[in-house]
Amino acid sequence: MSTRDVIGNLRALAARTSDAHGAQRVAWGPVWRDARAWLDEVLAADGFTTERDAAGNNWITLPGARPETVIIGGHLDSVPNGGWLDGPLGVLAGVEALRRYKGTPPPVTLAVCDFADEEGARFSRSLVGSSGASGSLVPDTLRGLADRQGVRFADALAENGVDIDRMPEARQALDRRHPRAYLELHIEQGPVLEAMGRSTGAVIGTYGVERHVLRFVGQAAHSGSTPIRMRRDAFLAAAETAIACREIALAHSTPEAGMVCTVGTVKVEPAIVTAVPGVCEIALDQRALEPATLASALAAARQAADRAAAANGCTAEWRHVWRIDPCRFDPRLVDLCAEAVQEATGHAPRLPSGPLHDAVEMGRIMPSVMMFAMSSNGLSHCKEEDTPEPDLEVTIDAFLRLVDKTVALVAKG
Amino acid sequence: MSTRDVIGNLRALAARTSDAHGAQRVAWGPVWRDARAWLDEVLAADGFTTERDAAGNNWITLPGARPETVIIGGHLDSVPNGGWLDGPLGVLAGVEALRRYKGTPPPVTLAVCDFADEEGARFSRSLVGSSGASGSLVPDTLRGLADRQGVRFADALAENGVDIDRMPEARQALDRRHPRAYLELHIEQGPVLEAMGRSTGAVIGTYGVERHVLRFVGQAAHSGSTPIRMRRDAFLAAAETAIACREIALAHSTPEAGMVCTVGTVKVEPAIVTAVPGVCEIALDQRALEPATLASALAAARQAADRAAAANGCTAEWRHVWRIDPCRFDPRLVDLCAEAVQEATGHAPRLPSGPLHDAVEMGRIMPSVMMFAMSSNGLSHCKEEDTPEPDLEVTIDAFLRLVDKTVALVAKG
Repeated sequence: MSTRDVIGNLRALAARTSDAHGAQRVAWGPVWRDARAWLDEVLAADGFTTERDAAGNNWITLPGARPETVIIGGHLDSVPNGGWLDGPLGVLAGVEALRRYKGTPPPVTLAVCDFADEEGARFSRSLVGSSGASGSLVPDTLRGLADRQGVRFADALAENGVDIDRMPEARQALDRRHPRAYLELHIEQGPVLEAMGRSTGAVIGTYGVERHVLRFVGQAAHSGSTPIRMRRDAFLAAAETAIACREIALAHSTPEAGMVCTVGTVKVEPAIVTAVPGVCEIALDQRALEPATLASALAAARQAADRAAAANGCTAEWRHVWRIDPCRFDPRLVDLCAEAVQEATGHAPRLPSGPLHDAVEMGRIMPSVMMFAMSSNGLSHCKEEDTPEPDLEVTIDAFLRLVDKTVALVAKG
Repeated sequence: MSTRDVIGNLRALAARTSDAHGAQRVAWGPVWRDARAWLDEVLAADGFTTERDAAGNNWITLPGARPETVIIGGHLDSVPNGGWLDGPLGVLAGVEALRRYKGTPPPVTLAVCDFADEEGARFSRSLVGSSGASGSLVPDTLRGLADRQGVRFADALAENGVDIDRMPEARQALDRRHPRAYLELHIEQGPVLEAMGRSTGAVIGTYGVERHVLRFVGQAAHSGSTPIRMRRDAFLAAAETAIACREIALAHSTPEAGMVCTVGTVKVEPAIVTAVPGVCEIALDQRALEPATLASALAAARQAADRAAAANGCTAEWRHVWRIDPCRFDPRLVDLCAEAVQEATGHAPRLPSGPLHDAVEMGRIMPSVMMFAMSSNGLSHCKEEDTPEPDLEVTIDAFLRLVDKTVALVAKG
C-alpha cells in the first residue's frame, strides 16, 4: 500500500536526521546533505536519479508522452529542532506519485522538486531555492548575509556547489521543462483543520505579510518619583498599540479567511525594574489574504500607533522590515484539490495558509495549489510536530488523487 | 556666604570623582573611597574628623551643651554614571550646618552621617549603611550577594574594613548618641517641584513598595497559521494587565499623594518575529503612601492579571520580589520643614518621595524628615541630573533654617 511507503520513508528519514531535540536538516549543512544522499539511495532502488539546478534544487523527472510538466514540490531542509513532516512530506508524496506512474508512463511529464533552503533558518532568508527557480531571486540580496558564526551565505552556497551569481539560471532551466501546474502537500502548521475535526484541506492561497518594527520613544524616569500623569511611558504606548492591532485584525477578518497580526518581540529600555521605559520596540507582523485588507489593516495600525503614542507623550517610528503580497492559488486547481480531498476524506474544507511556502514562488509562473495535512495541537517547527498516521494516510491518498486529476487536466490541454 | 561654600564643595567633589559619563562613586570602590578621603581633607580645614561605625558609615560630630543629638544625613556614594547632587548634597549641607555652629557650640549635639552604600548599585541591596545603623540589617541577607564580576559582598566589605557579622553593632553605637531627630536634604529625582514652579519642598513621607514578577504562560504558535481566536498570547495578557494596573494606580491616587505603578521590564518567549509569545514576564512595581492603599492596589492588580490571563487563555503566576512599608515622616518635623521652606522661598509645597532614602531607616528609630531640592527635567541617576544654582541656594538656606529650628525644638526637650 503506497501511502504506507511514504510514511515509512518519512520515519526512516527522521530516524537518520534527527536527534533528541528534533530534525536537524538545516539547509547547506552536513545533515541536510545526508538527507539528500539518503533520498538518492531511495530513488536509486526505483531507477530514479536527481539533477541539481543552479539554485541548488534537486529535480527527479519521469518523462511522459508529452513534455508539458506537472511539478510536485517539497523540501528536505528543516529548522533546527524541527519536525518530521514539514518539508519531507511533500517530497516523499511526490516520489510516491512518480513510482505509481513508472510502469505506465503518464500522458504528460511528472517532476518532483526538492527545493533548497525553504526555511531560511541559517541565513534568515526563506524560499531561497524556489525563488531561484521562479526568477525572483536577486543574488545581491543574499550576498551580505552571514550566519551566527559569521559564515557568509555566498561561501556556504559555494561549499554546496552553488555559485551565487548563477542562481537565476535555475529559472531558464525550469522554463525548458514546460511547467504547467505545481502541486505541494504540506503539514498545516496551525490548529484550523484539527479544530474542524478534519484530516485534510485544500489551500486557497497564502497570506500576504506586512512586517514592521515600531519604536516608541518617550522618557525614562524613576518608577517612584514620577507621577503617572507626568510619564511618557513607551511600553504602555506599545501595549496599547498591540491590543489595538488585535482588534484591527478581528475587524478585518472574513468567514473565508481570518486576518492575523502578532507582536512577537518586545524590547524595553532601560529595562530596569525601577525605571519607566523610555523606549519600547515591538515587531508587528500583519497577514491577510487580500491585498486591500492588508493595506487597510496597515493604515489602521499606523493610526492606532500614532494615537497610543500621543496618549502617552511618545513618538512612534515605523521601520519597514519585510513585505510580500498575498498569493491566491489557481481557482481550477483549488477546485480539483477540494474534489480530491472530498473523495478521500468525505469532506472538503478550504483554508488559507498563514506560513509561506515554495508554492508562492511557483505560483508566480504557473497555476499552483497546495494541500494541507492537519497538525496535532497546531504545532510545527518543533519535535512535537505530528499528523496522526490515519490522518496522514488519507491525506496522502487525497494528494495522489490530486496528482492524477492534474495530470489529466494538463493532458487535456 | 555659606550656601555658596556648599555648592563650591559639591562642584569640587564632582570634578574629582566624575568622568565624561557622570559621577562614579560606587560604594566600596576606589572612587568612593577617594571621595571620602577628599571629605576628610575638607573637614580637617575646620578641625573636624570622621569616625567610622561598624556598618561603614562615617560620622562627624559637633558636641553641644547636651548629649541629645540632631543627626543630618546623606551619602557620598553614587550609581555608575550618576549625578552631582544625589547624596553629597545632604552630606555637604550637613557639614555647612556644623561649620555655622562651630564658633558658638549649640545647645544640643549635632552630627552628620555619610551613610555607606545608599544606592546598592553594585550588590543590588540599597540602604546598607543606614539599615546597619537602624538595626534592621540582617547580615545573612547580604552574605550570598555578589557583584557582576563575582566578588562576594562580604569580601568587598572586608576590603573596606567592615566585618559583615559586626555590622549590627552600628545600632548600639547610634543609641549611645542619644539620637532625637533626623534631617536629610536630597534632590527630588522627579518632576513634581519643577512642574509646580517651586525650588524646594517638605517631604511628607516615602512610598511603600510592592514589587512582583508576573509570569504569563500561554502557548507559542506560528504568527501566520494560528487564528486570533485560537491564540493563547502571553504578551497580550501582560499588556492588558499593565494597562489595567495604571488605571488602578490612578483610581487609588489622592490629591495629597498620587499612587504610582510601573512595568519596567518585559521579556517574551520565544521572542521570534513570527511566533505568538507563549510566555511573557513583566516586573510590576507599585508604590503608595498609605499601607491600606498599597494593599488595595495590589489586590486589584491580582484580579486584573487573572482577568487578563483568562481572557487570553493564559495562566498568571506571581513571584514576590521585594516589599517595604510606607514611611510617614514625623508630623512636627514636617511642619518645621514646611515653615523653613516658606521662610526661604515664599512657598511651602509638601510632597511624598517615590524613591527610598536613608531617612526611611532613621525614621524607624527617631523623628525624621526630608527636604527636597527640585530636579531639572525630573532627571536623576544620570550625568544630566541638576538643580539650577539659584534654586539650590534657596534650598540650602531653607535646610539650614530647618537645622536651627530642629536644634531649638530638641533643646526645648
